[in-house]
Amino acid sequence: MLTFEGQKIQGVEDITAKLTSLPFDKRRHVISTIDSQPSTLTGGIVVFVSGSLQLPGEEHHLRYSQMFHLVSTLEGNFFVQNDIFRLNYG
Amino acid sequence: MLTFEGQKIQGVEDITAKLTSLPFDKRRHVISTIDSQPSTLTGGIVVFVSGSLQLPGEEHHLRYSQMFHLVSTLEGNFFVQNDIFRLNYG
Repeated sequence: MLTFEGQKIQGVEDITAKLTSLPFDKRRHVISTIDSQPSTLTGGIVVFVSGSLQLPGEEHHLRYSQMFHLVSTLEGNFFVQNDIFRLNYG
Repeated sequence: MLTFEGQKIQGVEDITAKLTSLPFDKRRHVISTIDSQPSTLTGGIVVFVSGSLQLPGEEHHLRYSQMFHLVSTLEGNFFVQNDIFRLNYG
């Protein structure tokens, strides 16, 4: 599940459609902090990232924060179960 | 588990000591956004909050983001399993 600026999007197809619609292939993306913790009951990991984006043609950086909840499968892989993204307006 | 500005703190006693050491009883605290998603495998909830803090004697607001992972007990209560806090520096 993805929550992007408050918009809730569920399922692989809809999330892929949303992410590919964003102009992120042209942006500069700088990560400032990464924090992670074990999410022990699920064998997963919660990850919290903050950073800034610079969009093409824009001088100013946009600050953002994002969290992921990575959950492990029985085969030892991980998938993104939860993804929440917010711009941090000054 | 609490990660506060990159400092990792584990266990009820140490987290309580950290939180009570902060000057949050005197701050103004304004929440801008709250996003939440079910964390289905655990019967829990992930919550993502952004907002601003104003400390006593300071004119400027500090922007922050914070995530919680709430996990349910067999009795139907919730506890905070993961808590990550970051100030968003401009």
